[in-house]
Amino acid sequence: MDLASYIDHSILQPNYTEKELENQIAKCIELKVYAVCVNPFWVKKAVELSEGKLVVCSVVSFPFGLDTKGQKVFQSLKALEDGAKELDIVMNFSALKSGLIKYVEEELKAIGRSTEGFTRKVIIETAYLNDEEKRLAVELIANAGMEFVKTSTGYAPKGASEEDVKLLLEASKGRLKVKASGGIRSREQVTRFVELGASRIGTSATFEILNRGG
Amino acid sequence: MDLASYIDHSILQPNYTEKELENQIAKCIELKVYAVCVNPFWVKKAVELSEGKLVVCSVVSFPFGLDTKGQKVFQSLKALEDGAKELDIVMNFSALKSGLIKYVEEELKAIGRSTEGFTRKVIIETAYLNDEEKRLAVELIANAGMEFVKTSTGYAPKGASEEDVKLLLEASKGRLKVKASGGIRSREQVTRFVELGASRIGTSATFEILNRGG
Repeated sequence: MDLASYIDHSILQPNYTEKELENQIAKCIELKVYAVCVNPFWVKKAVELSEGKLVVCSVVSFPFGLDTKGQKVFQSLKALEDGAKELDIVMNFSALKSGLIKYVEEELKAIGRSTEGFTRKVIIETAYLNDEEKRLAVELIANAGMEFVKTSTGYAPKGASEEDVKLLLEASKGRLKVKASGGIRSREQVTRFVELGASRIGTSATFEILNRGG
Repeated sequence: MDLASYIDHSILQPNYTEKELENQIAKCIELKVYAVCVNPFWVKKAVELSEGKLVVCSVVSFPFGLDTKGQKVFQSLKALEDGAKELDIVMNFSALKSGLIKYVEEELKAIGRSTEGFTRKVIIETAYLNDEEKRLAVELIANAGMEFVKTSTGYAPKGASEEDVKLLLEASKGRLKVKASGGIRSREQVTRFVELGASRIGTSATFEILNRGG
């Protein structure tokens, strides 16, 4: 299995420097990783450093999803303008849990409409949702025309689990792909999530995972 | 000492609901807390619930500071439009540590110019900076005409320390006030930071702090 082709390498620690970004992107190119995921400020630089050999993905409203609808649209458009080809957008799970379903729906549709043609992954932060809320999130994301549902930001008490990946795939009924992320640090985990049906894996442990054996 | 008058009560956990916001704001009003600090999405609701009895502060680019300059200005203006009177803005400490001083300076000035007349606190995230970088940050923030330097987001490995509050006050030479935040959970800590010269205290443990004794 060509694990590298499934990996979105996360470079999202807030205290990394430009030098570290350079080093990590060079290694990703060498290892033929699929994409790098960076914060909005670093998108332009990441695109420049990638020289077309890596897909650059920008996070949007990361890690809390608590920006306003307009801010999320604005941030998405800027990232695309700066050269990102994919967006990992944090859903407003606080609004969802508050029963503001209409707002969440409108927000996802507004982002969806304004970023058509790109690959959009919506992070639902499974750690904070019950199964009913996870299924509801899948419906809203699919109805907004997005491509992916993503499990976690890595900043909640729990990351991806096998149960959640199964649940999200089952609820998606083929409308969405699944990106598993959060707490994925071994080759075994990546393999297992891919076998379960995840189409993309988010991790910051890419170099440990790909350099070890296999 | 009237501790409540020093407190910015943080309601920044990403998974709280509207109901929790209501409860916490009601308690803050009862305890005569100075301000509540919320995420951008909740500013409008917090202003409505406060009924003029609390100052509402919005965080900007929280907790990483890694949005672009334009996004930070946009987010600041929207928060003020929604009724916030204060802004706690996360400085791009990643850019600072990368030596992109000019960019950080321009960003702070751009936010400073567009939000004049309001109380602006710039979070430098002391956990990631050495003393030289902390002093440099104070210069940039003072030169941008801001009112406060704030120690921490609460999302880094370390929060406020006595040494940092002293250093920031000393470096500010009266140009900036200091807000201590991050890891402050007791009455004793609040008292100590205020005695050292901090003008504002950020904490989510407000109710434990104010209900206990004294």
